[in-house]
Amino acid sequence: MFEYQHRVQFYETDPMAIVHHSNYLRFYEEARIHWALQMGMMDFQSNDASRFAVIGADVRYLKPAFFGDVVDIQVQARLLGSRIIFEYKMFCKKRNNQLLSEARTEHVHIDSHLRPRRPDEKLKTVMEKQSWIETWLLSL
Amino acid sequence: MFEYQHRVQFYETDPMAIVHHSNYLRFYEEARIHWALQMGMMDFQSNDASRFAVIGADVRYLKPAFFGDVVDIQVQARLLGSRIIFEYKMFCKKRNNQLLSEARTEHVHIDSHLRPRRPDEKLKTVMEKQSWIETWLLSL
Amino acid sequence: MFEYQHRVQFYETDPMAIVHHSNYLRFYEEARIHWALQMGMMDFQSNDASRFAVIGADVRYLKPAFFGDVVDIQVQARLLGSRIIFEYKMFCKKRNNQLLSEARTEHVHIDSHLRPRRPDEKLKTVMEKQSWIETWLLSL
Amino acid sequence: MFEYQHRVQFYETDPMAIVHHSNYLRFYEEARIHWALQMGMMDFQSNDASRFAVIGADVRYLKPAFFGDVVDIQVQARLLGSRIIFEYKMFCKKRNNQLLSEARTEHVHIDSHLRPRRPDEKLKTVMEKQSWIETWLLSL
Repeated sequence: MFEYQHRVQFYETDPMAIVHHSNYLRFYEEARIHWALQMGMMDFQSNDASRFAVIGADVRYLKPAFFGDVVDIQVQARLLGSRIIFEYKMFCKKRNNQLLSEARTEHVHIDSHLRPRRPDEKLKTVMEKQSWIETWLLSL
Repeated sequence: MFEYQHRVQFYETDPMAIVHHSNYLRFYEEARIHWALQMGMMDFQSNDASRFAVIGADVRYLKPAFFGDVVDIQVQARLLGSRIIFEYKMFCKKRNNQLLSEARTEHVHIDSHLRPRRPDEKLKTVMEKQSWIETWLLSL
Repeated sequence: MFEYQHRVQFYETDPMAIVHHSNYLRFYEEARIHWALQMGMMDFQSNDASRFAVIGADVRYLKPAFFGDVVDIQVQARLLGSRIIFEYKMFCKKRNNQLLSEARTEHVHIDSHLRPRRPDEKLKTVMEKQSWIETWLLSL
Repeated sequence: MFEYQHRVQFYETDPMAIVHHSNYLRFYEEARIHWALQMGMMDFQSNDASRFAVIGADVRYLKPAFFGDVVDIQVQARLLGSRIIFEYKMFCKKRNNQLLSEARTEHVHIDSHLRPRRPDEKLKTVMEKQSWIETWLLSL
């Protein structure tokens, strides 16, 4: 399963000294983009990241993440009609692989005028090879 | 119904020239905190904002928000056991009150060691007065 | 003198419970953009904000700003060759107009390929009307 | 010389598709904190990062940084009276080690009530071992 690491920075934490809840969506975006890079679905030069609009996001916050934590994010992805679904789990290695958060985001392919369009062949080909565990998330 | 306004800033937008999806959770937090201020549930000095941990967030992105947009956020809140549920709608006034986004967040009361605790009397008293429309959100 | 107000949000503060130093540049950008709007130098639709690249920023942090503070930002601007210079002072009204920070930023006009270009006539006309106090900043 | 790497994320870029100027202060903070970690001056558990207040920051933006760039940040540090001075250079390896930015930040040691205090012996011992090149920065 695809895995991505993020090191929690000081400026990502709030007065409770934990990661602000909005930043989880940024960490999950990092994981999603590196997944797409590894799949050959995008490269940085062509700015392909702009071709996928987020239409929904659902995040569960199970345990807090702290400054200096290194979090491991696992990702699975599937095509559902014209939507692309991503699911994520975030773990903290140094605290016994404690599960910190789970999330699901939904996306559509868009053109440069922000209009939705059908998934292209490249996307379909990549997505057909993905394995998907329906009951992978425990809290969503 | 409680309403809060946010003016979209340049630094809140991304290379698609629209508000980055993570920032919606920040706008909804602003609305939630100003709701709590108006209800007399917190003040800035005592840093009460730290007493409510976010345990879940679900956001639907219906239409993009742009730099310079003024968005109106409506809020409703309820107590559900020991959880506090907030629901939000975000509109753009200058585009005919177009609905841009809907969201729900869940919270628990915590102490200074980040441990959950029962809602206190002040919170209960405020929440009992709130009206709640079960079918208010259309996309969640 | 042009003045702009920003209300400090919870998510703009850090584990010290004060505004993170990077966010001052965002508040000063807000003030600068609203100055440009008032001068008729830009409108949100044409995305003129992208036409000015920041080439330098110098910030002094004199006193901390806290969650819930409303800060007043004063701005003065001048043209210096092909550079545009902005200077700022940030005050906290509720703490006796205490001076919190001072800053200077430098900008150049750029085209859509990020290449510098000469200030246009509109910019020159606006800038000629500005008054400028050479010794306005005390700490820079 | 100490060196730190940051990979530019999508959410760190703005409508010009370049890193927003406020984020440079975050990258420089990352570099500074990792420098302090390597020097044994702090650890994440004790939240030592809160013990150093930023009192000044001066940044030059020479060339833009783009989404996907990996930037190398070099750091030098010195003690000047009771102030700690950091200087930084940011390079882009894949564009021939092009110099993107230079910066200087100033800090003071503070206690938990945000009051300045004298540098402690640990800090002095670390700082005495640092080499410092007076003319290292070219644009500041």
